[in-house]
Amino acid sequence: MAKHTVKPGQIADRMPGPDPDEEARQSLERITHKFIIMSGKGGVGKTSVSVNLALALADKGYRVGLMDVDLHGPDIPHMLGVSGMLTADDTKKMVPIPYSDHLKIISMESLMPNRDEAIIWRGPVKHAAIRQFIGDVNWGNLDFLIIDSPPGTGDEPLTVAQLIPDANAVIVTTPQEVALADIRKSISFCRNVRMKIFGIIENMSGFTCPHCGKAVDLFGTGGGEKTALTSGIPFLGRIPFDPQMVQCSDSGMAFQQKFTQSPITLAFQQLADKMAG
Amino acid sequence: MAKHTVKPGQIADRMPGPDPDEEARQSLERITHKFIIMSGKGGVGKTSVSVNLALALADKGYRVGLMDVDLHGPDIPHMLGVSGMLTADDTKKMVPIPYSDHLKIISMESLMPNRDEAIIWRGPVKHAAIRQFIGDVNWGNLDFLIIDSPPGTGDEPLTVAQLIPDANAVIVTTPQEVALADIRKSISFCRNVRMKIFGIIENMSGFTCPHCGKAVDLFGTGGGEKTALTSGIPFLGRIPFDPQMVQCSDSGMAFQQKFTQSPITLAFQQLADKMAG
Repeated sequence: MAKHTVKPGQIADRMPGPDPDEEARQSLERITHKFIIMSGKGGVGKTSVSVNLALALADKGYRVGLMDVDLHGPDIPHMLGVSGMLTADDTKKMVPIPYSDHLKIISMESLMPNRDEAIIWRGPVKHAAIRQFIGDVNWGNLDFLIIDSPPGTGDEPLTVAQLIPDANAVIVTTPQEVALADIRKSISFCRNVRMKIFGIIENMSGFTCPHCGKAVDLFGTGGGEKTALTSGIPFLGRIPFDPQMVQCSDSGMAFQQKFTQSPITLAFQQLADKMAG
Repeated sequence: MAKHTVKPGQIADRMPGPDPDEEARQSLERITHKFIIMSGKGGVGKTSVSVNLALALADKGYRVGLMDVDLHGPDIPHMLGVSGMLTADDTKKMVPIPYSDHLKIISMESLMPNRDEAIIWRGPVKHAAIRQFIGDVNWGNLDFLIIDSPPGTGDEPLTVAQLIPDANAVIVTTPQEVALADIRKSISFCRNVRMKIFGIIENMSGFTCPHCGKAVDLFGTGGGEKTALTSGIPFLGRIPFDPQMVQCSDSGMAFQQKFTQSPITLAFQQLADKMAG
């Protein structure tokens, strides 16, 4: 089925068809639920959360697509241990990379022959690239599309908001005040562009020392819940920090498949239930 | 001297003068050293590093300007406990907010009457805003301009590279592999736009449990140095993780003024010496 390897330049240079917005709309019609994972600040574990939510939903038997619109720092393939380049099918649509029977992935990473190369694109090109990630990709029928967005309120989430009016935002934060100030901006963004906010997840919330078993508040705790409460937004839950999660991400191993009884795994299963419910 | 309060819309809507690039050039001529603090991935402590480098240089008696070009998540004023709005002087230039005799600050935050509001700007507007942060600001004579850039290789660092051809890049990373993959993109970016790389800083490198005193590798350790070595880039040093740094940032307190003998404070003093040397 896969015939032509897609080259990185193509996504930027390719002349779009007669109506690329219409192509995107047709792709989206076959996808039931769309979630964009956002954060105000970088490094709060947004990509980790996207990957683990997608895995938890796929484990429950849903058909899940994971779309990495963090064009400058596309970490999803690495985190899932997926390599290989994107290919195009007979209809010239790109074929998402399969991770399992229920989960497939699109990422800029899979268009780059050299993964150390930087994507130095200004906003309008990014808009076109993201539209192609929707309209020029053969996603097929999906129950869930999980969109991992770069931090902030710039071109990438704005493009998603414009192209996918029924997208739900999941806002990820860590508990410290500086991060919370930035998620209040994410909330303001969603309200401005009329995107529904599904809820807030507090990540890296508390840490247990592996040597003495005592609790250490690396970044504080409880701030995400407080912000959710004062903003009138559902609080979805708290995910503790675990250095083993960092190790799993680094080695391309799915944390929840290795640590099936971890509080982190259980937290993601509960989150998946909320998204499906 | 300060007469007119600058409103947030002005920075986006204001028609530029006859040659805004020339205005920026004139501002830059009065600044000896320019450093852009970059990172491939968010949340590696880039803003923390920018603030602490600026403080360390100012403590040594240098005249320092700190420019926050992270338009979507401008955290510098909060981290330094600085509030108040930007004003314009008689020549209609914006006046940077003074933190001390030797340190002044420009940030999008100081243009927003409501700090929870999101800046929803596409790339070209961001380019114009950053150019105004240079050319329309009365920086005066400075020894150092420290530029805190958002993560990634998008519009903001690209604009800095174009407007400030003699800027030096300091790349901040945490030690885990996913972060390192992204700084290799920052390195590729700098080489593409011919920006000189001053070196790499490894942040959040190691952590000592406050209860039992044992070392915990939150994000691993040593990866930044290894990447520097293999890329032929100077390794500037390692900064340990300390939850008190998070608390200081949250409460707007300068860590190195409170913890004068901390390994973190000493690390920043050494880094400042390298930058001045």
